[in-house]
Order: sequence, then structure tokens, then C-alpha cells
Amino acid sequence: MDTPAFQDFYPDSTAHCYGCGRLNALGLGVRTRWEGDESVTRFRPRPEHTAFAGYVYGGLIASLVDCHCTGTAAAAMYRHAGRAMDSAPAFRFVTASLQVDYLRPTPIDCELEIRGRVLEIKGRRVTVEATVLADGVVTARGRVVAAQMPEH
Amino acid sequence: MDTPAFQDFYPDSTAHCYGCGRLNALGLGVRTRWEGDESVTRFRPRPEHTAFAGYVYGGLIASLVDCHCTGTAAAAMYRHAGRAMDSAPAFRFVTASLQVDYLRPTPIDCELEIRGRVLEIKGRRVTVEATVLADGVVTARGRVVAAQMPEH
Repeated sequence: MDTPAFQDFYPDSTAHCYGCGRLNALGLGVRTRWEGDESVTRFRPRPEHTAFAGYVYGGLIASLVDCHCTGTAAAAMYRHAGRAMDSAPAFRFVTASLQVDYLRPTPIDCELEIRGRVLEIKGRRVTVEATVLADGVVTARGRVVAAQMPEH
Repeated sequence: MDTPAFQDFYPDSTAHCYGCGRLNALGLGVRTRWEGDESVTRFRPRPEHTAFAGYVYGGLIASLVDCHCTGTAAAAMYRHAGRAMDSAPAFRFVTASLQVDYLRPTPIDCELEIRGRVLEIKGRRVTVEATVLADGVVTARGRVVAAQMPEH
């Protein structure tokens, strides 16, 4: 898993996001890659990311889904345009809306996996669905409508 | 504003949430109070909470909305039951679903205000609507369905 992540291609000027910016030293460092037609993020929560003893707080799940999906939206747009991710101008997306359904408590002592699927590309908007798994068990599902940022 | 916040009444065993637990030293420390029929949280983002230069990342907004609304749900249930917040057994809620619409970028260099309104109390579920304001301008709207935790 040393192939570059979607977030490695974000231009420096948009690489400071607390969730996924490689230039944010204090941030979560979300990194997402294709596995076939699905996008995958793997993330190990920090001990302080607790909700209740042993479980992850909902805001972290929302943050992971959010950055996972905006990254997937960018990568999907490159595929859609038949362009390499290191080609210019860069595609970069922000969140228009975020929905998360918490199905069961998410354990904190394991690596979480977020798996994404592109539902729709329509103009400058991409809709991505995400599933959050802990030790292979689905604990949350999310959906993001991501909007392409202006080029300048 | 030195009246106790909703979160001050959370039992110690459920006061470690990264978003709003008073016993989580590294967390965000969300604190929410009634102002009439609205619940209000005020929060100053940290410099690292950036999305892009000058603006807050979406995951923080989602986290604030989440903890603001679960706190409001608990406080609303005490009101609904005609009980004081320091009476036992404690009402404590988790998030069943979270929806956030990002209307415009949220500036990072100001105190944010989250204002909540209880839409429905139905059995053990409370639906709360939240508005996020930065310098008086609405930047996001959210909705949470909160579910009351089992008593043990």
C-alpha cells in the first residue's frame, strides 16, 4: 500500500485540511485509494477520539466520511475525464452536504475501513456513498454530495 | 455565561466524548445552554481546524452540530419530563443520524455560534435542528436524530 493516495495529488494551496491535508501536521491525515471501483480509506483512531469507553465519537466518523468522499469525488472526476491525477488543472471538491447514519457503536481499538462508491457525476457535483467498517462489521453508512471548487 | 452547560450534567461514565466530554482533556469541549427555547453553543475553532486557508473543515462543523444536538436532546428530555438536569437517572443521548448542509465557507477566525431547536420528541428519540453562524451569517444547517442511551 505505498501507491500514492488521492490526497497526495491535492495542490499545496488546498492541502491543509485538518481531515485530509498532507500539510496539516496536527490533522487526521485521511488517505484514500482505489481498489477496483471502490475507494478505500484505512484509519486508526487515536485514544482521545472516544465517545464512551471503547467507542469512537460520531464527529470522527463524520470527518472520515467527509474527507473520504471529497477525495473520492476528485478521483472519480479524473477517471470520468480520462485524465491522470497528476495532470493540471487539479480537481478539488468541497462538501455540499453530508449524511451519516450510525448503525451501531464503532470500536476505537481497531483500524477502521471506509469504503466508497460513486453514485453520480453530474456537472460539477459528485455523489459518493460510504460504508464504515470496524473489524469487518458495518457500523455506519454515509453519503456526501461534493461540489467541485472553482479553479481559482 | 457561567451557568452550567448541559454537558456539565453528564454522568462521569459518559463524559469522555472528544466532542463534548468535560473529562476529555484533548477534546473540543462543546458546551451548550438554553437561551429561551433555543439551545446555543459558542465555539472558537483552533488554527489547525482549517479546510482551506481562512476556513473551517467540514468535519469540525459536523462534530459541533452532532454534540450540540445530542446535548440539546438530553436537555429537552429533562424539560419534557419536568425534571431538573441534576436529577437521576440521567438522560444521555447518542446520534442515530446526522445531516449537515454546507451553505458557504465558515470562517475560522471568529467565534462560531450553533443554535438548536427541538423539532420532535417521540419515545426515546429526539430530533434537533441546528444552525451554524459565523459573525451572524448562517454558514451551515444540520439535523440530528438522537437516541436515548439505555440506563445501564
